Amino acid sequence: MSTLSSQPYKGTRDYYPAEKRIQNFIFNNWKRVAVRYGYEEYGAPMIEPIEIYAAKSGQELASEQTYMFTDRGSRTVAIRPEMTPSISRMVAARRQEMAYPARLFSIANFMRYERPQRGREREFWQLNVDIFGLEGALPESEIIAMGAEFLNVFGATDDMYSIKINNRKLINFMMAHYLGLDTVQAQLMIKLFDRKNKISTDEFRDQALDILGESMAEAGLAKISTLLNAHTMADLPEEIRQSNAVKEVQELFTLLDAAGIKNAVFDITLMRGLDYYTGTVFEFFDNHPDNNRSLFGGGRYDGLVGLFGAEQISAVGMAPGLSMTELFLQSHDLLPKLPSTTDVYIAVLGDEMLAGAMKLAAELRNEGVNTELDVTGRKLDKQIKTAVKKDIAFIVFVGEEELKTEMYSFKDTASSEEQKLSFERIVTTVKDRRRVHSDDLDDLFE
Amino acid sequence: MSTLSSQPYKGTRDYYPAEKRIQNFIFNNWKRVAVRYGYEEYGAPMIEPIEIYAAKSGQELASEQTYMFTDRGSRTVAIRPEMTPSISRMVAARRQEMAYPARLFSIANFMRYERPQRGREREFWQLNVDIFGLEGALPESEIIAMGAEFLNVFGATDDMYSIKINNRKLINFMMAHYLGLDTVQAQLMIKLFDRKNKISTDEFRDQALDILGESMAEAGLAKISTLLNAHTMADLPEEIRQSNAVKEVQELFTLLDAAGIKNAVFDITLMRGLDYYTGTVFEFFDNHPDNNRSLFGGGRYDGLVGLFGAEQISAVGMAPGLSMTELFLQSHDLLPKLPSTTDVYIAVLGDEMLAGAMKLAAELRNEGVNTELDVTGRKLDKQIKTAVKKDIAFIVFVGEEELKTEMYSFKDTASSEEQKLSFERIVTTVKDRRRVHSDDLDDLFE
Repeated sequence: MSTLSSQPYKGTRDYYPAEKRIQNFIFNNWKRVAVRYGYEEYGAPMIEPIEIYAAKSGQELASEQTYMFTDRGSRTVAIRPEMTPSISRMVAARRQEMAYPARLFSIANFMRYERPQRGREREFWQLNVDIFGLEGALPESEIIAMGAEFLNVFGATDDMYSIKINNRKLINFMMAHYLGLDTVQAQLMIKLFDRKNKISTDEFRDQALDILGESMAEAGLAKISTLLNAHTMADLPEEIRQSNAVKEVQELFTLLDAAGIKNAVFDITLMRGLDYYTGTVFEFFDNHPDNNRSLFGGGRYDGLVGLFGAEQISAVGMAPGLSMTELFLQSHDLLPKLPSTTDVYIAVLGDEMLAGAMKLAAELRNEGVNTELDVTGRKLDKQIKTAVKKDIAFIVFVGEEELKTEMYSFKDTASSEEQKLSFERIVTTVKDRRRVHSDDLDDLFE
Repeated sequence: MSTLSSQPYKGTRDYYPAEKRIQNFIFNNWKRVAVRYGYEEYGAPMIEPIEIYAAKSGQELASEQTYMFTDRGSRTVAIRPEMTPSISRMVAARRQEMAYPARLFSIANFMRYERPQRGREREFWQLNVDIFGLEGALPESEIIAMGAEFLNVFGATDDMYSIKINNRKLINFMMAHYLGLDTVQAQLMIKLFDRKNKISTDEFRDQALDILGESMAEAGLAKISTLLNAHTMADLPEEIRQSNAVKEVQELFTLLDAAGIKNAVFDITLMRGLDYYTGTVFEFFDNHPDNNRSLFGGGRYDGLVGLFGAEQISAVGMAPGLSMTELFLQSHDLLPKLPSTTDVYIAVLGDEMLAGAMKLAAELRNEGVNTELDVTGRKLDKQIKTAVKKDIAFIVFVGEEELKTEMYSFKDTASSEEQKLSFERIVTTVKDRRRVHSDDLDDLFE
């Protein structure tokens, strides 16, 4: 038999313990924030019927980016490329039984067939937070405030990122009533606005002219220019400023201000690609020059639950991703050094000490100390090397002397300091260190 | 557009918050045990090239049960049906850099195309624990002792389950040297032994005769009968008892005895379906009459890492599943009632109290209290009903009086008791309850 490749499938990542610790660090902090706000965790299947994406996620996502296939029973399914259709389906299935407003979150993996690049993988992890059953701007402001918390919990400050906000109703009003576009033109123009920062000014102008057509060309371009120069709502043309859609946006900004969010800005070019948004849309952007890009976003999608045969229900959601968060934390130097979850490595000085070392390991575990025991009978230097390679904070040496006196040589692998400690002092030393390195769920379930 | 089904894909489950809490309860306890033993968490991709299963997982699993498909780049892949090939691939990829022995665990979801039934879903969750780089019976005894811990951590006692142990080398010796079967016959006989409890005695006899052929029929049946009546190693025929394979099994039992494992038994009919096992195999069985079946198992698989072009490395692993664990806990009444992760629901008495309630919510969250705020302006009875429906332990009422005096009406939803508490007393009451309901990672990352 020929040799199998040891590489993971293209665009996916293997998480070895050191990388998994970073993933858990981010997941645990996300969870901490979500439960603080009273959101409850749920889970959904990794595959779904393809129809739930075809309906509303947008043509590109459903037809070109899904991992779609036919199962052994001839059902056409897809590995989930996003969570919103799944949680909408779940809410629809228990429309009557659920308690509203429902505040829900999940952390899950997804797949999209895209060209892998920095911060974008074919298999990726996302946190999804959603509120079902609340009208008005309050749920939007709550979700956006949580979005800020999902960065601030890691030590981010307001200047490190900005929050761009727009509204689909406002976009539709602009397209139909201000620019006077028909449905097809409006769709194309929305996609063009969405690509604005990815193409040159000339390209943008040419494509805008194509969409407008000859008769509307001049007036249309002038109006688009007015729109693109509107950096606050006050800059908008009078007829847009008077629309109900603008009032919604204003209400949201008032609430965000009351919630202490200082870095939210109105951005008329923000479109968000997915078809299901119906009101507020927003995106968090990294301000760091090395990573100046969208981090994550969300918005209101009132139409989705109703597709599953249930009565309509309003919904607002957001989905921060793992890779983008990791890049953000790296750019801003917010990622701490994370030691192993193992607290203590027991190095054994000779095979005849193994029984005593096993007993000590069991006792340490009973006291809540995460303990790895070296049972190899190797030379001491090899045992120490293993502990250091695994980023384990402490080594306890077990020899004849130690077992007799019950005082153990105890080494801090970071400082290389060594001292003689009793069993009780080992336990308290380990727990004191954990309190300092509180990179985990310490205050979430304490 | 026609209505979409709100049902999940066949054989998969939606985990609403109440079910997700049970899942997290089991996952968190698994994690607690795994890190206590010094195992480190890793993660692997949800899809892999089909070849890694075709190689060693066994014909049935790879060809009939995988969710296999061709991606948009013509690669044939499968949603992982198990973890062992993935972690073996990962170890092979970093064969040189890793520290040994490597103790690793993961909690992940898998898919197999099987007929869904009680305790068996098409999408299922498993804990995988593996040791790489340790020869001898020590890693087996450690993994089996952890297997017991994965049940005992929930309150299980020795009498609730038993651990059946066999050894592939012993099986091979029995087949080739004791029964005198050739390779093809041996394979068939192993599958037949594996099915023994699923078919009648007559069927077993008939199929055994088919495999043995006429010339070996009588002597063969007699020898098989001797084997099946061997309930301890002492009952085995002399020629088997003298084999090296039996010595391995005996060594393991000695170590298990020293580790305090009292419910392990030798079972010569235990085969385990997967092709990659090379030594010890074991299975945990539920003793409860309503759920009398295999819970989970594992064994030694020394050949797998080498398939990925790396130097061979010894490996022992085990994979408890979520559904079987849940059924076990239900059968033995070991599943506690799990309240919401939300500690406090703030009910608001009138819209003009909302700003004050929001401030209180923020302060509670700052103190580590998981707080949901009702912003609906609904009648009070509806707000209370929502909190109760969500299994939230406490309701804090915020009205004019409360905001003025800073003494809050505080209701325990389980007992319906109500009292007036200060902010500080609310915080301590919530945290005291959490310490009692320590169903989470409380002592894992404290």
